[in-house]
Amino acid sequence: MSAPFDRVWLNANLATMDGPGLGVIEDGAVAARGGRIAWVGPRAALPGPAAETIDCAGTWILPGLIDCHTHLVFGGDRADEFERRLAGEDYAAILAAGGGILSTMRATRAADEATLLAAALPRARALLAEGVTTLEIKSGYGLEQAAELRQLRVARRIAELLPVSVVTTLLAAHAVPPDYAGRRGDYARLVAEEIIPAAAGLADAVDVFHDRLAFDDADTLLVIAAARRAGLPFKLHGDQHADMGSAALGARHGALSVDHLERADAAGLAAMGAAGTVAVLLPGATYFLREAAMPDIAAMRAAGVRMALATDMNPGSSPAQSLLLMLNLGCTLFRLTVAEALRGVTVEAAAALGLADRGRLAPGLRCDLALFGVTRPAELCYWFGRNPCLGRVFLGRVLEGR
Amino acid sequence: MSAPFDRVWLNANLATMDGPGLGVIEDGAVAARGGRIAWVGPRAALPGPAAETIDCAGTWILPGLIDCHTHLVFGGDRADEFERRLAGEDYAAILAAGGGILSTMRATRAADEATLLAAALPRARALLAEGVTTLEIKSGYGLEQAAELRQLRVARRIAELLPVSVVTTLLAAHAVPPDYAGRRGDYARLVAEEIIPAAAGLADAVDVFHDRLAFDDADTLLVIAAARRAGLPFKLHGDQHADMGSAALGARHGALSVDHLERADAAGLAAMGAAGTVAVLLPGATYFLREAAMPDIAAMRAAGVRMALATDMNPGSSPAQSLLLMLNLGCTLFRLTVAEALRGVTVEAAAALGLADRGRLAPGLRCDLALFGVTRPAELCYWFGRNPCLGRVFLGRVLEGR
Ligand SMILES: [Zn+2]
Ligand SMILES: [Zn+2]
Repeated sequence: MSAPFDRVWLNANLATMDGPGLGVIEDGAVAARGGRIAWVGPRAALPGPAAETIDCAGTWILPGLIDCHTHLVFGGDRADEFERRLAGEDYAAILAAGGGILSTMRATRAADEATLLAAALPRARALLAEGVTTLEIKSGYGLEQAAELRQLRVARRIAELLPVSVVTTLLAAHAVPPDYAGRRGDYARLVAEEIIPAAAGLADAVDVFHDRLAFDDADTLLVIAAARRAGLPFKLHGDQHADMGSAALGARHGALSVDHLERADAAGLAAMGAAGTVAVLLPGATYFLREAAMPDIAAMRAAGVRMALATDMNPGSSPAQSLLLMLNLGCTLFRLTVAEALRGVTVEAAAALGLADRGRLAPGLRCDLALFGVTRPAELCYWFGRNPCLGRVFLGRVLEGR
Repeated sequence: MSAPFDRVWLNANLATMDGPGLGVIEDGAVAARGGRIAWVGPRAALPGPAAETIDCAGTWILPGLIDCHTHLVFGGDRADEFERRLAGEDYAAILAAGGGILSTMRATRAADEATLLAAALPRARALLAEGVTTLEIKSGYGLEQAAELRQLRVARRIAELLPVSVVTTLLAAHAVPPDYAGRRGDYARLVAEEIIPAAAGLADAVDVFHDRLAFDDADTLLVIAAARRAGLPFKLHGDQHADMGSAALGARHGALSVDHLERADAAGLAAMGAAGTVAVLLPGATYFLREAAMPDIAAMRAAGVRMALATDMNPGSSPAQSLLLMLNLGCTLFRLTVAEALRGVTVEAAAALGLADRGRLAPGLRCDLALFGVTRPAELCYWFGRNPCLGRVFLGRVLEGR
């Protein structure tokens, strides 16, 4: 009789994320077959032999981590702006001289695919080294069709070159490009009528920056309607700089997630809870922007809103390259519990991407695992600037540690 | 004729920290002989051949980084406390049940040298992987002679096992142990009269927690006098939770540094500037404690205070394992400039430890180098949760990258 499992991980403690909390199974086992999880439970109950057995020596196994909100494909960086602002230069003057998102737009438009890819790969590798097995990547720095699609092609290429799943999101409605200055509505129509249809096959979802500095309700509804015509789910950057009603708008129209939400009101959050719309929390941006407003976690809890946690890795408001750091930032700044933070980078992050096949340790799901050298899961949130990831498993295959 | 240099690093950009700013030399060279820097300058001016030449391919070389304030030898951790507080447990109740520093004291007292060493080595390695070549380590969790000396022996042992310089600091006056409850002065006398003399040869310096929760002026002066008798320099944890006059006291009595200073007044800072006392800034603790008070950087600048930057790595108020992260935290929270932050982990950190033989790239100094894959030094401050260290050089020897 052949072994029923391809591979079994033994002598591990599991945080399965199955059920309401961490779903801890001490002295557990995970078995894989055909790249999927075939069995999870206490080691003593493991039903059969495996072709290969791996002794985890007491490490903790979590579902492979999921960074559900990044902008990691872009040209240039803004380290020079950062330096100049700290040296006392006026930000308005820096912006007037072409700084801010427009400098990233120019660098992204000017970069070819190979250049964008070479810059993006180390950023992706930094996340993988922490146990990430699924990564969302947005466009949004091209702000014209060719450059937006180029960003998405680079994002797809990352998944061909590295052992990671990449979910691509078209964020052409990230800002109004200078070519459309004063014609915001025209640009929103361009996105809806031309760029979204052209992104068929390259984009897995559509995103809009619903903000007083970007796109209003009417623009956003245009883009949402175009996403629907293209058969794509959508999400919003919303309620970040002001309460725009993004939470309620996203919930009403069936967004997968609304992200940021620093200034969302309780009614909007209640609507998200009722609709099952995921809140994606981005504490890296809160920290880096020294934002006083924090998302209303108490209202989210009260409304039963699902909360995910992500890096928002981007050159302007969150030049962060660590999802583990977001665990500490989420707990420290937003007072998330350990279970909320860890669910936020696993099961809830999967929900924010509309993926039902990962984010938990349960039979039938992808066998994507992250192994950590900690004595309890809380350590992953408590330490900051530390990477205790010992290795990853991607579709049942054992990958390098760091 | 034999080559005048043992080894030369070419095709590098240098941030020498010589002079007031970063001391940048583009397309520079560093030459080593006998473990010391023999020559630094523009590559075109390099005077002679070397036995070995290393092409740095345009990377940036900084002096090896110096973490001048850590408590990285301790037993246990406080991840459980962190988790319980986030879950809503009352901190006073946790303290009453033996939590806080006393739980670390118990775990440290209970641990033998091998246990303390096994826990400390990965923490030290995390810093080394970022380019750290000199590390300060404090005792302060034993709070009794045997356990304090054990911490110092473990700190010394780290320098035997890893390629790093370790400066040891006796911080027996970190808190009043429960065995001396209500007899703070008696404990200060024990430190001054017994523990400091017993630490001869094991401690390179003495530190006191000058705080309303710890030791007052009289206690502190007792300990300073004992340090002086033992021939050891001293430093203070000061003006953290209240303006205790620590800055002025440290300056008046010749402290190497006063560390924390969130609530130091301008007069105290002016005294530090006049005396050359280094301010050691610890933004990891500010962040982790969600401290509203920030050190008065403007007053420090006005008074010409030298500013160093360190992790304060410890289990209670800064469970941080990254000095590079402190660069971003120092810039983001305290609005340090890029040059201030980078000097804070090199030349000013050396000053905080009283070490004149490192912290800059200059002839005659130790050839301790950190190599970074960045296009400009500002990137080291701008990104967070990223480690671009490509390798270290320790006393002229080339060490592993990560
Ligand atoms: Zn974003
Ligand atoms: Zn300290």
